This record gives sequence, structure tokens and C-alpha cells, in this order.
Amino acid sequence: MSNTQTEIKSIGEFGLIDFLTKNNETKLASTLVSVGDDAAIIDHYGKQTVISTDMLLEGIHFDLMYFPLKYLGFKAVTVNLSDIYAMNAQPTQILVNVALSNRFSVENMTEFYEGIYEACNEFNVDLVGGDTNSSQSGFIISITSIGEVTPNTYVMRSGAKKGDLIAVTGNLGAAYLGLTLLEREKLIYQSQPDVKPDYENQHYILNRFLRPLPQKFLIDFFEEQKLVPTAMIDISDGLSSELHHICNKSQVGCKIYEEKLPIDQQTKFAASTFNLDPTMCALHGGEDYELLFTIDPKKYPLVEHHPNISVIGYVTDLEDGKKLITKSGKEIDLKSQGFNHL
Amino acid sequence: MSNTQTEIKSIGEFGLIDFLTKNNETKLASTLVSVGDDAAIIDHYGKQTVISTDMLLEGIHFDLMYFPLKYLGFKAVTVNLSDIYAMNAQPTQILVNVALSNRFSVENMTEFYEGIYEACNEFNVDLVGGDTNSSQSGFIISITSIGEVTPNTYVMRSGAKKGDLIAVTGNLGAAYLGLTLLEREKLIYQSQPDVKPDYENQHYILNRFLRPLPQKFLIDFFEEQKLVPTAMIDISDGLSSELHHICNKSQVGCKIYEEKLPIDQQTKFAASTFNLDPTMCALHGGEDYELLFTIDPKKYPLVEHHPNISVIGYVTDLEDGKKLITKSGKEIDLKSQGFNHL
Repeated sequence: MSNTQTEIKSIGEFGLIDFLTKNNETKLASTLVSVGDDAAIIDHYGKQTVISTDMLLEGIHFDLMYFPLKYLGFKAVTVNLSDIYAMNAQPTQILVNVALSNRFSVENMTEFYEGIYEACNEFNVDLVGGDTNSSQSGFIISITSIGEVTPNTYVMRSGAKKGDLIAVTGNLGAAYLGLTLLEREKLIYQSQPDVKPDYENQHYILNRFLRPLPQKFLIDFFEEQKLVPTAMIDISDGLSSELHHICNKSQVGCKIYEEKLPIDQQTKFAASTFNLDPTMCALHGGEDYELLFTIDPKKYPLVEHHPNISVIGYVTDLEDGKKLITKSGKEIDLKSQGFNHL
Repeated sequence: MSNTQTEIKSIGEFGLIDFLTKNNETKLASTLVSVGDDAAIIDHYGKQTVISTDMLLEGIHFDLMYFPLKYLGFKAVTVNLSDIYAMNAQPTQILVNVALSNRFSVENMTEFYEGIYEACNEFNVDLVGGDTNSSQSGFIISITSIGEVTPNTYVMRSGAKKGDLIAVTGNLGAAYLGLTLLEREKLIYQSQPDVKPDYENQHYILNRFLRPLPQKFLIDFFEEQKLVPTAMIDISDGLSSELHHICNKSQVGCKIYEEKLPIDQQTKFAASTFNLDPTMCALHGGEDYELLFTIDPKKYPLVEHHPNISVIGYVTDLEDGKKLITKSGKEIDLKSQGFNHL
């Protein structure tokens, strides 16, 4: 937070909107009308529209003690775009509603919107609407994303079939460890405010939590390869919980292998310093915003050598349950709970 | 609020979503995928998409002391649809995000969603997504509406031209008086809890505030008549404030006539009991959700005899300012502030 702070009421609600959107340039030909009217107008070109929305609340979803506002703006957008990619679609526009109490200044909001615009630019989407409100306490964000998809190539959670391969992008567990590190440093700060936080060699896990990148590459790759997965979901609550969603919606079971779980070396190192099992972090940590998908096994050659895709198991019959094969060869039930419930 | 209350945590977040959406039937062929996946999928038929979003916060936008939850759900939807109609479009889908503290029960949310579904049915829109969250205090609602419009017949705030007629639907000022009545009864209740509120003969103004209906008829009428207004906006902050928006965006002035302002008899009666000037209520009251629009004067015969449309003035040059001609013939400046700033 910078030193000269302008009270939001000094410029008013309309003034704040004007101020925050004055540099908002429209990038897409499909954006016919952007912010500044009752609603935005979006054109279509024989495509189907995909739409998703999420709400983030201070104290529930984020802690401003360690979440810089610019990162928060960036993440608020990217986690929403992640839902659009998870349908095998390309995001095109977003709308942003915020509510904030009077402890926030115009400079704070400028920082937050810098993150929003950075995400919009990086993923080629237009900000086309939304409003700002007063809140009685805290900071509330609600974002809606729109995307487009070639007719009938969208991918739901419900299409997985017995024998399909189960795959994930990137690697798992790092975001949870980033959060764990920030929570630890917060506790230290609260008891010893003069101790500087020590984030040396931890930038990877911190960035995975503070600045998640959605998996646009996978949607581009599917399009190039003319590959349509049978089911897909983004990993916000942890691999295990998302696998449960796919299995339940598709009425199938699954078998995944602990040794196949992609976990970065830095995640393993961080887990060891916290005395945590990296497999548990990967299964239940959440907030990785990788994509989890299933494909016809005949398509295996297309993904086999991709450096950013790991096949971790396969789809089974509903009656076979949801199973993890441990490194020691033991078959155990996959729990759907998040980390805190273990 | 009913007597048997189920704690929301007893059914969990996923349980709550399932419970609240289990009777959500899809009405529109364009709704390809509804709630239950990462995002909704909406088809298009050579139309353009219109999208708008709004946030409502307890203690800022509504007071649950006098706002029944079912009415709140209905109003949260209808005020959003009003923005879609204000673009000369037909709403088709909505997404609803809510956040609530643990003082709300499953029964409370059921009541709220009854209002949401009632509005969806009445205005033929599908609920296709959104999520529920915990809040640390109070009830927060964020709604996004999608609509469709025949290409290039959407109407912005910026198209008003000198000489255009200025018209409004329905009548003005009643919602503000409904709010004033509810606020008065709240104060009485707070000092004398045993005195029953007296709402006799006040149902019209109460309903105008608690259960606003957006002006779908006007969009249907425009389509039938092949009439496209030059500018349009919905009246949420009061006629005067909305006229300022149209004039500022269109770079024009306006002249309206006090004697032409449509004010219901019941509004005039209620205003007199509160010692308020009905003209001030109509100009600055807000929350009426009528539509304000401008049309080419050649189209006057099309609207002249419509029982639900009033022509109240005309568009002038920017340099002529924004003027009200009072009943006594005096020309005064139209202020843009809401009622409380008078």
C-alpha cells in the first residue's frame, strides 16, 4: 500500500468506476459494447458461449496480511478463467463486481485492478462490466467469465468412460505449501513483528499460491491435435476431490498411482521442511489450478511425450470404487476431503 | 423464517448447492449445460449476447428486518434483468453467487431461492450457475444476467439526439415511498416492539419497493412495432440521475415537464402523509425500475396512446443544459443527486 491515500468517497462511486476503467482498451472484435452502459454486448460467430462465476471474500478465501492486492486481482481473474478452460473453451470477456469498506483507498483499488488488467492482457480477455459497492466490512470480489467454444466440443465432468486414461497438467501440491508457508510466517509476525519473513528459495511455491496460471496451453494443444477429452475439471479443491466429482458425475470408478503423481522437487523439499507428506499435499492440497481430464486410451500417443501432461491412472467401473495404488503397491480408498479433514 | 431450522454446515456446501438447484428445470433450448459443471454453456442463433452483473449487500442495499427473503430473491433477479431490458434485449440466463454467515439456515436459503425461481419463471430465464460461500457477516448476493438481442438492435445510453422525445414507462416515486414507510415502521418497532406495523392501503407502494417488475412489455412492444429507441436506461437511482447519464453519454441536454411526470394517485397520497413532494420522489427516489428512453419524434404516433408510456420532454443541445419546467412554468436545473442529497 502506497503512502498517499485518496479516500474513495472523495471521488464517488461513478468517479471510481471511471478512474479504474479509463485505460481499459477493448482487445476483441467480439466485444461490441464494454463497461459504461447497463450491460455489455458480445458478438458470436457460430460459436457457443461458456459462462462461469465465482465469489471471493476477505477472511474466507484470502488474507490481505500476506496477499498483495495486485496478486489478488490477478488471481481473482485467473481462477475464474480456469473454469472456462476446464470446459475446453477459450475465455473472451470478464465482469468484475467488488465491494469494499472505507479502509480501502483509491490507490489500493488501483493496485488491485493492475492485477486484473495484467491477467486480462496475459490471457487475452476483455473486462466488459461490473460495479463497485460499499461493504460494511472487508473486501468482496465476484467475477463472471465468458468464453467461446466451437459448437459441441465443450467438455463436461460427466463424460468419463471405463478404460479412459486419467491425466493432469503440470504438477500438484505446490500451492498448498505456498499457503502453509505464508500462514507460518503470519503467525511468526504476529508474535514477533520485528522478525523479517524468510522466503528465500521458496518463490516457486509462493508463486504457485499467489499467482496461479490457468492452463491455456492445454486447450490450445487439444485444438491443434483435434483431441477432445471425455471429461475435464480444474483442480481447485485438490486432485482427490476433483476426481470424485468426475467419477460421481460420470458414474464410474478410478484407479490412480501414487508414483505417477507429478510433484515438483521444490514441492517435495518444502513438504519435508513442514513435515508433510508430498503425496497428501498433491491429493488434497488444492488451489493448483491444473486441469484434470480423461481421454480415450487410443489417444495416448498424442499425450505420451508432452512434457506438461502426466497420465496418472485410468477409469474403472463404478463398482470398483475410487482407488489409489501406493508406491508400496497397496490399494487404498481415495478420500474426497480437503487437506484439513485428513 | 420457519421454526425448524437446518444448519447449513449439516449439509455442506455441495449439499446446499444440490439442494437449492434440484428443482431447477431448464426452460430454454439455448441452455445447453446448466448448473453442476465448471461453467454453463449457452447456444446462440445468430443473435448477440448481452451481459450484466450486480452485487447486493446486506446493510447497504437491503435490510432483512423488513425485507422477506423470498422477495429479496425475486428482486435480486429482477433488478438485474432490468439492465438487460435496458439494452433492448431479452434476458435468457442468470448466474447467482451468494455468501452468508452461519445465522442463515437451509430454510432461509430455500425461501430466498423460491423468489429467485419465481422471477426466473415469470421472465422466462434459466438459472445456469453460481456458487455459495461462507461470509463472516451478513448476506451478499452477486447476480449476472445474460440476454440476447437481434444483431445491432441493442440500445445504449449514448444515442440520444437533439429533438428526440424523452419517455418513461409506468410511474415514478412509489418505490421510494415504500422504502420510506418501511424505514418508519422499523424505527417505531425498535422503540415500541409491541406496536404492530400498519401497512393498510399501502400495498402498492410496498410492492413497488419490495417486488419490482422489470419492463419486459416495452421490449416486446418495440419488437412488435419495429421501433428501436435512440437511447435507453433503467431507472434505479431516480429519473434525474438517469437522465444525466443519457445526456452525458449522448452529449446533449434535455428539457422535461413536471406536469408530464407519471405519478400514481397512491404515490401522491403516500407522499402527502410523509410531507414529501411527489415530484421530488419521482425525480430522485430511485428503485422504480421503469425504463427511460428517447425516440425519434417521427415515431411519436407509435407511443402516443400507449397506456403505460409517458412522453415527459425532449432532447436539447448540450449547451442548453438539463432543465425541468415546473408546473408554474419556471425553468430550473435538474440535479443529478439522489434523494438524500437534496
